[in-house]
Amino acid sequence: MEEMKRELADIIRAYHQKGWSPATSTNYSFRLASNPNVIVISKSGIDKSLFSSDDFMEVDLKGLALPAYAGIRSSAETLIHCKLYELFPEMMCIVHSHSVYSVLQSMKNQTSVELSGYEVLKGFEGICTHDTTVQVPVFDNTQDMPAFAEVLTRDKNRLTVPAFIMRQHGTYAWGRNLFEAKRHLETAEYLFEVDWKFSH
Amino acid sequence: MEEMKRELADIIRAYHQKGWSPATSTNYSFRLASNPNVIVISKSGIDKSLFSSDDFMEVDLKGLALPAYAGIRSSAETLIHCKLYELFPEMMCIVHSHSVYSVLQSMKNQTSVELSGYEVLKGFEGICTHDTTVQVPVFDNTQDMPAFAEVLTRDKNRLTVPAFIMRQHGTYAWGRNLFEAKRHLETAEYLFEVDWKFSH
Amino acid sequence: MEEMKRELADIIRAYHQKGWSPATSTNYSFRLASNPNVIVISKSGIDKSLFSSDDFMEVDLKGLALPAYAGIRSSAETLIHCKLYELFPEMMCIVHSHSVYSVLQSMKNQTSVELSGYEVLKGFEGICTHDTTVQVPVFDNTQDMPAFAEVLTRDKNRLTVPAFIMRQHGTYAWGRNLFEAKRHLETAEYLFEVDWKFSH
Amino acid sequence: MEEMKRELADIIRAYHQKGWSPATSTNYSFRLASNPNVIVISKSGIDKSLFSSDDFMEVDLKGLALPAYAGIRSSAETLIHCKLYELFPEMMCIVHSHSVYSVLQSMKNQTSVELSGYEVLKGFEGICTHDTTVQVPVFDNTQDMPAFAEVLTRDKNRLTVPAFIMRQHGTYAWGRNLFEAKRHLETAEYLFEVDWKFSH
Repeated sequence: MEEMKRELADIIRAYHQKGWSPATSTNYSFRLASNPNVIVISKSGIDKSLFSSDDFMEVDLKGLALPAYAGIRSSAETLIHCKLYELFPEMMCIVHSHSVYSVLQSMKNQTSVELSGYEVLKGFEGICTHDTTVQVPVFDNTQDMPAFAEVLTRDKNRLTVPAFIMRQHGTYAWGRNLFEAKRHLETAEYLFEVDWKFSH
Repeated sequence: MEEMKRELADIIRAYHQKGWSPATSTNYSFRLASNPNVIVISKSGIDKSLFSSDDFMEVDLKGLALPAYAGIRSSAETLIHCKLYELFPEMMCIVHSHSVYSVLQSMKNQTSVELSGYEVLKGFEGICTHDTTVQVPVFDNTQDMPAFAEVLTRDKNRLTVPAFIMRQHGTYAWGRNLFEAKRHLETAEYLFEVDWKFSH
Repeated sequence: MEEMKRELADIIRAYHQKGWSPATSTNYSFRLASNPNVIVISKSGIDKSLFSSDDFMEVDLKGLALPAYAGIRSSAETLIHCKLYELFPEMMCIVHSHSVYSVLQSMKNQTSVELSGYEVLKGFEGICTHDTTVQVPVFDNTQDMPAFAEVLTRDKNRLTVPAFIMRQHGTYAWGRNLFEAKRHLETAEYLFEVDWKFSH
Repeated sequence: MEEMKRELADIIRAYHQKGWSPATSTNYSFRLASNPNVIVISKSGIDKSLFSSDDFMEVDLKGLALPAYAGIRSSAETLIHCKLYELFPEMMCIVHSHSVYSVLQSMKNQTSVELSGYEVLKGFEGICTHDTTVQVPVFDNTQDMPAFAEVLTRDKNRLTVPAFIMRQHGTYAWGRNLFEAKRHLETAEYLFEVDWKFSH
């Protein structure tokens, strides 16, 4: 677990440098196969340029802090993580970005971002050719996390690739491990950028 | 104080790398709660790619160098810092950028930059939802610092978020500590960039 | 060989930081003059932010893994490397990028990117003046590597500079050594960016 | 001199990372006040991502290699350095970039880039207010260095700030020391970028 914390913390600081997590924004979590009922998630309000292994805490599948972390606030969006782990039980890691191009795409596209014909689409698990079209869903942003969790349940069938955008907010992506979640987020962000620049 | 100097110097060099402080431009300061009558501020003319703890000096609340620093020139904009600490006595740190998108916004918007509906607006202290609209004021640039300080006094009620832009110059942001000032500046700069790219 | 692996791995990680190789995408190879029948090539599916000397394997000129690497999968595009070494026997290194501007150029230009009058054109071996025009060919992307290798054979005469683009995929560049291949790729990518920004 | 070489080499690698010196392009020099008849200049063909103190050589004021460096080729543009040191005898350092925005500006502006009202204009020595207008001259690119040196002599009066652009090539900037030359180049490049983005 300490190794995973260190690796994810390194990635979080790298994402800050890319401009994907300005100031204290964005949140991240993982689960260990040996104990999938515990979610290791970033604490709330940590400056992502300085994020370290010590800035994680543990919550249960309902998002409640484990006793060892009582009184510490996890990310405001903890329930999104809980819901994604519930909907996709094989998933073990969730990453997030507030990238500029994700936000721009969500301001232009009402319901989804359509991505077609790009080689890098193969970065999404299960896609073996560029000759395909993918819809990354865009959901309205909200501060009401239980309501948003219901939207995810209702629209699970729209999650045909492991990523979605919250409008004017950012991208969530997930995978069966940190490596895969990272690949999915970088794939989505790259495609959002190329696609935006092509039409502007 | 040495720890604060080191942390702020690290941030200044990182801002230079982002392109927010080309060459010797921009200035920074902080106060310690234990001695709020002393402003620790960046010396004038230091290359920000090399800024270190040694490149700070101390001035009083009127911007005059303390005896230990007699003869050393502080930033030309020292009076802006003095005025902000006077107007907002709880504030303990002021940061600045000459970011490209801040300058672009100030060339497009006569009196303020309107930002609406972004999740990252929550980076401004006191804002708890994306579902809001913020006006970041834009003031005309001037080399007459006493005159500019009067503008700030007169228009204090327009400073509804802890940041403003000087036209074709850059952004000032502040906070109750370095952590908060940094968060406010990164929040403003991120939003200026997204907002600019959306309409261009 | 270990020195070459280390140098190329350093470059691959630097390219990832530039955004040229999101996630596990892109592939790289070199040959040693002392043994030109062996191609040292990046393994498939390695995260390019973490690519190290250990992430290379050896294949023969037909792209088959040498016995010491039996069972390990090289890049899906290994046959492109094999074909380029066959067509240009003096070439000893091949590099690749999925840069945003390469992809954008390939979406705008059906058959080639025309670059004219730039000083940096001199980065292509054999070009001694900016006062020239170069056509970088754009080929359709495909997952059928034997078919693509045939396209390269057929259109070898269009490869008048040591680089081409696969549509919505990225740039390949090559050289007589790592130094030259790197120069050719950076030359192409720089020119694609400038040229794109000038007309948009 | 070793200290100067090390500092300038650090800056060159940093400029490469910014994208200002793709591959082996760009060149740099300095003179020491103790021996202004010797120009310490970058050798030709060095990859700027790896540039080190060892990659400098010494030439005389006509650009000829000193005996200790006989047979080593200095930058193809050595004569530009010689001419600038002749025209501005107080200048001790010359830096160069092939930045994207410099090239873009030179493709849009026939004779000069006009920059007006920016705070960062104060980065140019002798400018004390943003309330001014500066013309950075744009000269046609050429491979004929003696001819270009004559253009500089003829148009010396147009060099009202310590920088110019060669068309589709890049920016030269200079100063009385490395610190000042660096400030002038970063000032010019920043302003080229802001000004380009404002009108596009």
